[in-house]
Amino acid sequence: MARVAYVNGRYLTHRRAAVHIEDRGYQFGDGVYEVVTVLAGHMVDEAPHLDRLERSLASIEIALPMSRRALQLIGRELLRKNKVVNGLLYIQVTRGVAPRDHRFPENVRPALVMTTKHIDFAAQPKFEMGVRVIMIPDQRWARRDIKSIGLLPNCLGKQRAAEAGAYEAWQVDADGLVTEGTSSNAWIVTADGRLVTRPLGSEILHGVTRRAILAIAAGEGVAFEERPFSVDEAKHAAEAFVTSATSFVTPVVQIDDTPLGDGTPGPVSRRLLEWYRDYMVGGRNVD
Amino acid sequence: MARVAYVNGRYLTHRRAAVHIEDRGYQFGDGVYEVVTVLAGHMVDEAPHLDRLERSLASIEIALPMSRRALQLIGRELLRKNKVVNGLLYIQVTRGVAPRDHRFPENVRPALVMTTKHIDFAAQPKFEMGVRVIMIPDQRWARRDIKSIGLLPNCLGKQRAAEAGAYEAWQVDADGLVTEGTSSNAWIVTADGRLVTRPLGSEILHGVTRRAILAIAAGEGVAFEERPFSVDEAKHAAEAFVTSATSFVTPVVQIDDTPLGDGTPGPVSRRLLEWYRDYMVGGRNVD
Repeated sequence: MARVAYVNGRYLTHRRAAVHIEDRGYQFGDGVYEVVTVLAGHMVDEAPHLDRLERSLASIEIALPMSRRALQLIGRELLRKNKVVNGLLYIQVTRGVAPRDHRFPENVRPALVMTTKHIDFAAQPKFEMGVRVIMIPDQRWARRDIKSIGLLPNCLGKQRAAEAGAYEAWQVDADGLVTEGTSSNAWIVTADGRLVTRPLGSEILHGVTRRAILAIAAGEGVAFEERPFSVDEAKHAAEAFVTSATSFVTPVVQIDDTPLGDGTPGPVSRRLLEWYRDYMVGGRNVD
Repeated sequence: MARVAYVNGRYLTHRRAAVHIEDRGYQFGDGVYEVVTVLAGHMVDEAPHLDRLERSLASIEIALPMSRRALQLIGRELLRKNKVVNGLLYIQVTRGVAPRDHRFPENVRPALVMTTKHIDFAAQPKFEMGVRVIMIPDQRWARRDIKSIGLLPNCLGKQRAAEAGAYEAWQVDADGLVTEGTSSNAWIVTADGRLVTRPLGSEILHGVTRRAILAIAAGEGVAFEERPFSVDEAKHAAEAFVTSATSFVTPVVQIDDTPLGDGTPGPVSRRLLEWYRDYMVGGRNVD
């Protein structure tokens, strides 16, 4: 996290950035968030991220804490104060502070926190080398389309991946079908070069990067299918990759103990990453 | 919440009781909690609550932030400072403060917050009048045996109940079987007077009050079965009730639009509530 954070109306130094213990985010996980990538000073896909923030909030009946324009201005001001050129903007909204009671409090203002982080996206070997993923049971709640801060199962899964020396854990539903990673969407490439990723629904997060990749694929004439795929199909796929705001298109070269192809990033994944990098710069939507 | 809270080593006034925005409880719901009832100055079932706190923490690999004895002393001191004779002690432990990353941070101290609340348990018509419950789909994650602070689905369910004029929502699994309430365990009484409640497992919280009621039933010669029951069986039951640390034994007199029996608390529920009140006083384990 960079030096200054925005917390409920104030720009505070990191040390002083605090929320009340009865903020419902702390006692109930009653809130949602967004992570927006900042590249060369521009927010990537800012509009769809804010759209999703509004959808997440509406799903759990929390009001947007201020106008969308005001949110955007605070995000820009925070990036400026922290001199973030490459990195991310983190936005968290909770239902607000109220005496502990599961029921929604009345007349409470939503709480808003924003932070930023510097990231050197160029110096990340994952894009060149590819990564390993492991398979784990999907233990999350039924509404993964709501980007809630209740991320304990995601943390447990990511930790299991880290302990296995893997980058990500792909979560598998009761039918043996992959839902998604703990903080990324999951993709495979078939032998004839078609992209496959799970269709939208309550089973997965509606990834903003996922959406961009589908649009890029459509524009470039790369065939794709939005359908669930099994663990077995994934392990026999020509290629695989994950997408997220900060993973971009990260090639997967091994699933559990099974190498994919020759164990190096495949041509389709590499091409998509290039196109997505172009998209992030060309598709900038700020200024 | 009473005037003074314990927050990470300090007794703070309510207004100043704050945690860092990068406490993993706030950003990930990465923590657990307990609620202990205080009756006539005594903590009810303190030991099993602390046992469960330790189990919850162990399940997600968070260390107990201090010795059990130290936790107990702080709880007592906080109750004393706030002059709580009847009410509750709330204990929350999170993985601690660290830069946002799903993986577990290294060398981070768990965060500990305790609060208290005054409650007049005598002045609650729910015990005499009984309450209504509604049925909702169970949307929670797979590990309800871990008492995690990720309670958004519970909050959504309780709010739905409140909007329907009901006290609690009973959550129903994919097989049409009741798991439990959003903050209480669910029970029915069969026509021949047997208690039925769902067996322990990852599908429900291992209620401390549930445990006490089973022990009381065994001691008083009331037959019981630990098995799942369906929505239909519940609506045709002779009686029903919910148990939790602060609900004690609260009779259920209506499920959705179906009255149970004559629509007033049944004799088995009323007797169990009396026995449980005796248990809370006699079974006190403090001092």
